[in-house]
Parts: sequence; C-alpha cells; structure tokens
Amino acid sequence: MVVLEPDPQGSPAMIRVHLENQSVSVRRGAVPKRPAGHALIRLLCGGICNTDIELLRGYYGFAGTPGHEFIGEVVEADSGAWVGRRVAGEINLACGRCEWCARGLGRHCPRRSVLGIVRQPGAFREFLTLPEENLVAVPDTVQTAHAVFIEPLAAACEILEQVRIPKAAEVAVLGDGKLGLLIAQVLALHGASVHLYGRHRDKMRIVEPLGVEPCTGSERPAAAYAYTVEATGSAEGLATAVAMTQPRGTLILKSTVHGAVPIDTAPIIVNELTLVGSRCGRFAPAMKLLKGGRLQLDGMISGEYALKDAARAFERAQEPGVLKVLLHC
Amino acid sequence: MVVLEPDPQGSPAMIRVHLENQSVSVRRGAVPKRPAGHALIRLLCGGICNTDIELLRGYYGFAGTPGHEFIGEVVEADSGAWVGRRVAGEINLACGRCEWCARGLGRHCPRRSVLGIVRQPGAFREFLTLPEENLVAVPDTVQTAHAVFIEPLAAACEILEQVRIPKAAEVAVLGDGKLGLLIAQVLALHGASVHLYGRHRDKMRIVEPLGVEPCTGSERPAAAYAYTVEATGSAEGLATAVAMTQPRGTLILKSTVHGAVPIDTAPIIVNELTLVGSRCGRFAPAMKLLKGGRLQLDGMISGEYALKDAARAFERAQEPGVLKVLLHC
Repeated sequence: MVVLEPDPQGSPAMIRVHLENQSVSVRRGAVPKRPAGHALIRLLCGGICNTDIELLRGYYGFAGTPGHEFIGEVVEADSGAWVGRRVAGEINLACGRCEWCARGLGRHCPRRSVLGIVRQPGAFREFLTLPEENLVAVPDTVQTAHAVFIEPLAAACEILEQVRIPKAAEVAVLGDGKLGLLIAQVLALHGASVHLYGRHRDKMRIVEPLGVEPCTGSERPAAAYAYTVEATGSAEGLATAVAMTQPRGTLILKSTVHGAVPIDTAPIIVNELTLVGSRCGRFAPAMKLLKGGRLQLDGMISGEYALKDAARAFERAQEPGVLKVLLHC
Repeated sequence: MVVLEPDPQGSPAMIRVHLENQSVSVRRGAVPKRPAGHALIRLLCGGICNTDIELLRGYYGFAGTPGHEFIGEVVEADSGAWVGRRVAGEINLACGRCEWCARGLGRHCPRRSVLGIVRQPGAFREFLTLPEENLVAVPDTVQTAHAVFIEPLAAACEILEQVRIPKAAEVAVLGDGKLGLLIAQVLALHGASVHLYGRHRDKMRIVEPLGVEPCTGSERPAAAYAYTVEATGSAEGLATAVAMTQPRGTLILKSTVHGAVPIDTAPIIVNELTLVGSRCGRFAPAMKLLKGGRLQLDGMISGEYALKDAARAFERAQEPGVLKVLLHC
C-alpha cells in the first residue's frame, strides 16, 4: 500500500517507508533539512535486516521509518569532498563527548541514537541525513548491491575485534541465516577452519567456495570447539552452543532472541566458558573485505524491490528460507 | 545418627560420613588401602560446602562419603618427605595424559574424578587417600581451621587467573554468602575497590577490615561496573549482575543454581558483555594468601563439630545465615 500524504511543510517531497501497528506503508514526507556537520544523502539501496522485521512485529514499540543498512550518494555536505560520493554510514549517532566516545566506542555511547532503530528516522526513504563523521566512502570497485552488506558484515567482523581467534583455529558457527553466513565467510577469510551448522543445504552452498564446511546433520559434537559462534536466532541455540564448546573455550553470542531464554549456567561455570556478547562493528574492516572481492554475496540476495514496493519487500523478507532483500531507489 | 556397621573385610576400622536418600549418617568402614603414588591421610578438619548440601538434597544422585574441603596429616606415602606433614589436597584427580592435563588444566580433564563429588569417596572420613601430586603442604604458621578454607579460597583466586582485573578497579561482588565473602577478600587484597552487595550486615562486617564497602540497600546501580562477580546462588542473581555491568564489561559467574535460569540475552549482546564461568582454582595462590595472614576467616566459622556428629553439623550448615561449618577429627 502506498499512502501519499500531502507534505504539510510544503518542502520538497519524497517517499519514505513507514512501519506502524505491524504494517508497512509507503508515505510521502518532506526531504529532511541538513543540520550543520551532516550530509544530505540520496538513497541508492537499502537492505532489510531481521531487526527491521522485529520492529515491524512491534517488539520494541517502534513507529516510523526503519532502515539501517543502506548505500547512498551524498547530495550536500559541509565538506565538498563528500558531494557526489557513494557512501555507507555508521548507524550509531554518538554524543562525541562521553567516556565511551573518547574511547572510540561511540557504539556504546549511552546517549546515542541509532539510525532506523532508536530515536532516529531510518534509511528507507529517498533522502536521509547523517553526520559526516559517520560516513564511509564506497570504493568504485565495490558494487552497491555488495556494499549494502557492510553493516551486518561489520557486525560479523566485530567478533575478530573482540576475540583473538588464532588463524588456524577450528570454529563452529551455528545458524545458516544471513548473519551466520556472513560470520562464516569472515572467519574463513581470517584463516579459520569453519564448520557451519545449519539446516539449509542450499544456503550453505553459497559459502563453500571459501572453504566453509557445511554440517547439515542433526549431530552437534559435545565439547568439541575452542570457539563457537551462536547465530541461530533461536531460543535453543544458546544451550546447544554451550554444549559444543570446549572447557575454557569461547562462545560468541550474536543472535538476539526476543524475551527470556532458559539457560543452565552449570556447564558454563563447570567448564569455565567465556561468553562474549557481540553486536555492531567498525565499518573499516568490513569495507576492506568488500574491496578484497572474495566474499560470496550474490547468492545471499533473495529479492530486489523498488522503494515504493517496500510492503512487498517486507513480505518477501519474512518468507522462510529467504536471505537478504534489497530496496532500490 | 551414628550407624556403626561391622567392617566386612576385617580391615582396620574407621568412621565415615555417608549421604544417601537425603539423610546424613555416620558409618563404620575400612581404612582405605593406599595405591602406589598415593598418600594415606588422617583427617584433621573438613569444611561443609554448599555443594555438599546439594549432594545431600539429592540433586546429583550422589550416595556415599562427601567432603572435598579438608586438611589432614600424611600417615603413609611413597615419598617419605610427606609423612607427618599437614596437607591440603587438590580435589580433581586427573588422568595426567590428556591434552588438558598437558596444559596444566587437570581440573578440566574429561576423565577426572573429583574428591567427594564425582566417582571418588570424599574427605569426611577418618582416613582418605589422594595422589601425592595433589598434595599441598600447609605452612606451620597457618592454623588448620584457616587452612581448611583453601579450596573455596582457590576458587575465589581463580577469578584473577582468568580475568585481568586492574589493581585499582571498582568491582561489584553480588552475594554475601561464604563464596561471596571470600571473593570480596581476595579482590580487596588484590587492590581492587570492592563493593559487596548483600542483605546481611553482620556478614559484611567480617570483611570490612579489608576495606570492602558493604552495600546492603536494595539499590543496584545500572551499568555501573566494569567488573561484576555473581555469587548470590540465586536464580535472579544473573539478571541483576548483567544489569549492573558496564558496556564491554566483564561479569564473572561463580554461583551455580540448580536447573535452568531464565535470561534475556539482549543486554549481554547489545552491551557486548563478557561472561566468564569460573569454578575451581589452583591452590598455590590461595596458600600464599593464607600465609599472608590478612584474610578474615575466624568470623566466617559458624560451627565446629566432631566428625561423629556430622548429622548435626549438616543441619547447622543448612540454617539460614550460617557460614562455614567445620568437622574435626
């Protein structure tokens, strides 16, 4: 459904995606005014993330424009060098003044807003603004439909920023969804021997060229891995991952599950496991991987829609077995 | 109840504590034969641990002689140097041949037995045997009733073996039970500024001479600590500890709770917390602290009983507010 509302301010109009009451609509809105220090960006491509689906389902009381995975072209900026550039953007808008920001951890700034998630309209609109310091230029050699993976790819790279995984380590990745497939690729390119546990042979085939070993059976070897990554998105995933991790091993928690998960802490304590919660990451390592050109991303695109067809795109993104759905503008 | 059964083998008789069907009895048994490489040890003092209470309550299907906190005197050994020495003993009996043992982590040997807990009769008997390599000599300056704390004290010291806590760090310790009080002391002696959260003003007073700050109110400051230790022994403790830990902070899990605990993993992931399961530790750092003489242990002894009165001792140990109960032989 495209709802074209009159623009109350009489500003130049654009269309934007709107989530509210568990439905997706496309509305007309005003092109946002660019605050000082911000760039005005014309959307080229957006990616629908599981978080967007959760926002749609109403888990967080969200109403407004979603979207935090995007590539755009800078239309206006304080710094002329940005104008005309293709860019990605760090999604956390930090205060720049607190101790977290001083430590380079604006992603944990307690006053941060988050593009399309927390107190900041998202990227699924024809034009958006973002602080220039959040921008990352996309090299000419990286195509837009690949570059749009940068945000979840940065989240996958974050694992290597937090945990020192030896290059030759055997790592179990649990979950063959979008994030699991990206994590498997990042760790394989790091040099690890990655065993990807999942149920979808066709999805796993995407990452096999990078040497990822698919494990589609029901077997989950006990206490077998020094490093395990939980990316199943299921409530059972955590207990399974705990059981698969060696004593003194490290288990990286990537997938959030809505609500409380029952967990027996005894094996965590008896085996002295380290559990590491892991969320967003810096874009620089992700862009380096994109430039390297070895990532298998084409197979991860399950659908491409025009921005005005966002409702259909969201429907598609919720179908079983679907990976990334893109919105083009 | 003392059950004096005839000794079927006609070996020299001794008494031993027996747990079965949620009751404590004292029985006659044979003095154990000393295998090669083992020492025969006469019990001087044992300490009742929460794990012993859980074994009594039948959580793990345990039946037999409990006890893993002890100090004894060596009666016979392959190496004459041990004879007559007062000793503590590492409670994990490792295979000595696997990769864990090779890494000095026999406490994680998958073939280990554990004194008084897993496939190894415990120390609450007049005589026990233990491999000589498990023995740790007790210096003359350390009294037996203090030395018997070495096993839980080693578990408290294990935190510093696993996590690099800066000497001046502010650390929250949750729980003013036996383990919480020992952890607070170990971290305070390490140099940390320890805030101990609990409900018992009288227990907290024990550790105040070491500079531990008691926090008895109901307030639990949010995201306030870079290091948090969960030692409440309660199902709610984990969620409270998660909420008190700063982004990128470390939460050490010390207290096992029987059964599954509901946990919302979202704040662990969003704040990128590191959770570290922590169990037993090496005895050497604990003995060093005991030798130092600054630990406050007298106030932690809530009762002392003869071994033959073990049933009463176990009753006492289960009363609310009671700390360590000792058995003397």
